[in-house]
Amino acid sequence: MMRTRPLKVALLGCGVVGSEVARIMTTQAADLAARIGAPVELAGVAVRRPDRVREGIAPELVTTDATALVKRGDLDVVVEVIGGIEPARTLITTAFAHGASVVSANKALIAQDGAALYAAAEEYGKDLYYEAAVAGAIPLIRPLRESLAGDKVNRVLGIVNGTTNFILDKMDSSGAGYQEALDEATALGYAEADPTADVEGFDAAAKAAILAGIAFHTRVRLDDVHREGMTEVTAADFASAREMGCTIKLLAICERAADGGSVTARVHPAMIPLAHPLASVRGAYNAVFVESEAAGQLMFYGPGAGGAPTASAVLGDLVAVCRNRLAGTTGPGESAYAALPVSPMGEVVTRYHISLDVADKPGVLAQVATVFAEHGVSIDTVRQQGKDGEASLVVVTHRASDAALGGTVDALRKLDTVRGVASIMRVEGE
Amino acid sequence: MMRTRPLKVALLGCGVVGSEVARIMTTQAADLAARIGAPVELAGVAVRRPDRVREGIAPELVTTDATALVKRGDLDVVVEVIGGIEPARTLITTAFAHGASVVSANKALIAQDGAALYAAAEEYGKDLYYEAAVAGAIPLIRPLRESLAGDKVNRVLGIVNGTTNFILDKMDSSGAGYQEALDEATALGYAEADPTADVEGFDAAAKAAILAGIAFHTRVRLDDVHREGMTEVTAADFASAREMGCTIKLLAICERAADGGSVTARVHPAMIPLAHPLASVRGAYNAVFVESEAAGQLMFYGPGAGGAPTASAVLGDLVAVCRNRLAGTTGPGESAYAALPVSPMGEVVTRYHISLDVADKPGVLAQVATVFAEHGVSIDTVRQQGKDGEASLVVVTHRASDAALGGTVDALRKLDTVRGVASIMRVEGE
Repeated sequence: MMRTRPLKVALLGCGVVGSEVARIMTTQAADLAARIGAPVELAGVAVRRPDRVREGIAPELVTTDATALVKRGDLDVVVEVIGGIEPARTLITTAFAHGASVVSANKALIAQDGAALYAAAEEYGKDLYYEAAVAGAIPLIRPLRESLAGDKVNRVLGIVNGTTNFILDKMDSSGAGYQEALDEATALGYAEADPTADVEGFDAAAKAAILAGIAFHTRVRLDDVHREGMTEVTAADFASAREMGCTIKLLAICERAADGGSVTARVHPAMIPLAHPLASVRGAYNAVFVESEAAGQLMFYGPGAGGAPTASAVLGDLVAVCRNRLAGTTGPGESAYAALPVSPMGEVVTRYHISLDVADKPGVLAQVATVFAEHGVSIDTVRQQGKDGEASLVVVTHRASDAALGGTVDALRKLDTVRGVASIMRVEGE
Repeated sequence: MMRTRPLKVALLGCGVVGSEVARIMTTQAADLAARIGAPVELAGVAVRRPDRVREGIAPELVTTDATALVKRGDLDVVVEVIGGIEPARTLITTAFAHGASVVSANKALIAQDGAALYAAAEEYGKDLYYEAAVAGAIPLIRPLRESLAGDKVNRVLGIVNGTTNFILDKMDSSGAGYQEALDEATALGYAEADPTADVEGFDAAAKAAILAGIAFHTRVRLDDVHREGMTEVTAADFASAREMGCTIKLLAICERAADGGSVTARVHPAMIPLAHPLASVRGAYNAVFVESEAAGQLMFYGPGAGGAPTASAVLGDLVAVCRNRLAGTTGPGESAYAALPVSPMGEVVTRYHISLDVADKPGVLAQVATVFAEHGVSIDTVRQQGKDGEASLVVVTHRASDAALGGTVDALRKLDTVRGVASIMRVEGE
């Protein structure tokens, strides 16, 4: 039952991902046609620099006028792999208005304007798919919004940024400091010249907003995501983690509160036990651990970035959107019916590992313990180490709110006997 | 835009999985309705023993006449969690003929008669979904047939049977023998009184047939799957594996041949390197490792069995099928267009770890090496151990076909100096 009129696909952007999408559309054309039920045809490619040679793409398909391309009116699907907010946003809404469905890999845009884009898609009866926006090739959006549609997700713990995982893995395995590990990541092409978006957690925060929104059927804005980068993680932190049987990962954590009435989303470095499946995620790989009420603990693992892996996710969406188009239907749209409140970071409850530099004299521990008790933060273990008049106290707490821990730390800093708070690290995944 | 007429769902079977499906349909009714766009109503439950108390299910819904239930004509979806070939097969085709789509958790039936069931579903324009048939709660069917629809899967390596993984993990961690580990699995409820289907690999073989079919867009029959159980794995095998930096898992392996022109599917115990993500899958957990051309290496991990996890997969399918029904469409049907030949086991190419009991005298190694060379099997490493006139030779080969290895072993057995072949184990995942 193969239809002969091909489905027309326009590509916005032809960089690392776009060129792979175009290549696979050509080399796997027969497979794609069989799986969709109709051939797909690359109808146009919008680029910024038309003079660059693009192997395998007919020159007459290349244009610098992306707006004219999405306005053609005969397109079935527009694939947006430009990234960034504008012009991607306007091009996507224009594409909907002119009859096309959209596949996007744009995490920043979906995180910031997902609700408006979904509304535009619905207005025009078109599809918006974006599997590639989170964790590259790893099927994650579809499993969360379809496979787990009959379940209740309580927590998502994800390593969703390959650059930072590479750096932290390097620090863990070699004892290197942050700067040395970053330099290696840069030299190997895992980190960009300006690594801010990765190391400060902006990239992971966008993904956390998207994941939380889908997992909890609730709109979670980028501003709702508490964000801490990993530039201050030290070799000493890794040594402390190892003593606890843990390693350190930059995690995107989306949680439903114990009473079910609210959710939180956050990105920060955290200690996790070595026995946790996320602890053994090496190099630039990504993995997302999902805890749901009926399914229990699931993990999805794979390459989180790169041209071919991201193209795989884009093409999976392309096949789905084309099938929907042939069937005259659309896939699942935004699901935000639960509309749960997103609580601030202060209400997050977890455990903490705190290193204090203290005076090496009697009574310090009693003072410190009193401060914890006054703020309602219960201590699990304390380790004291003294040398040369200097001493350190490592405190691991029971579960407490971030607000209570913050108050405790403020009060500790005011103690004469506390010379400094060397590090505060949350402990997750226990 | 909530529709008020509920979608009617009949449940065939109300055991461990069915009762969880019914429970979640009740407790999560509002969420399911919001996600589907219409309420779902449990319209009938077919059971064998109507006298058993079924908490939360209205007695008037319970019937022993499954055939009459699926013939009602007003059902939207039939959920089949009876298992086995008959009466499940007839009930499913009857359900299609009377207007219902079907969600099944029945691996044996799908593996044996999937093509015929798909044909029946298509004839009546209905859906057949079966995410729960492979690896319980782990989203796997949907990612393979939808997320990776634009990619080319080359290999699937799966731990798809929790019972055998529990036993092998126990043997690995405690040094226990097979029988001792099986006894513990039985005592803890991980193994059934008759564990044959699990330990002889029948259960995993059914899953391998299903996975291979979806991964390669090719019909793979249960008979096409080479199957070896794990009852002969010994503590000595684990010791050998550890010396190679490996552990032993019962794997379902589906591969595309290097030339792309054929596929194979098999189930057997195999050594895999400790660094492979599958090596750290503990206890009764399942995990499936997928290698595809663009996405690279992906892994899906989670509970492979159990009432609630399996119900999660069933309900995800139920939501999808109900959405399709409201949209007046159906999801992807059978995709077997590639119709690749399924090669016999002899053509599988992998590495081998062979332990031989040999006479402890000069020249044995030369004789053994000659036999390998004559059969075109290249040796990677050899280790000799002698004690008390007895000696053993451990040979690890380079990649060779199963047929070549079989010929080698037959010839080795005929050597006077070879007293026995203690074990032959394939080495995978390198």
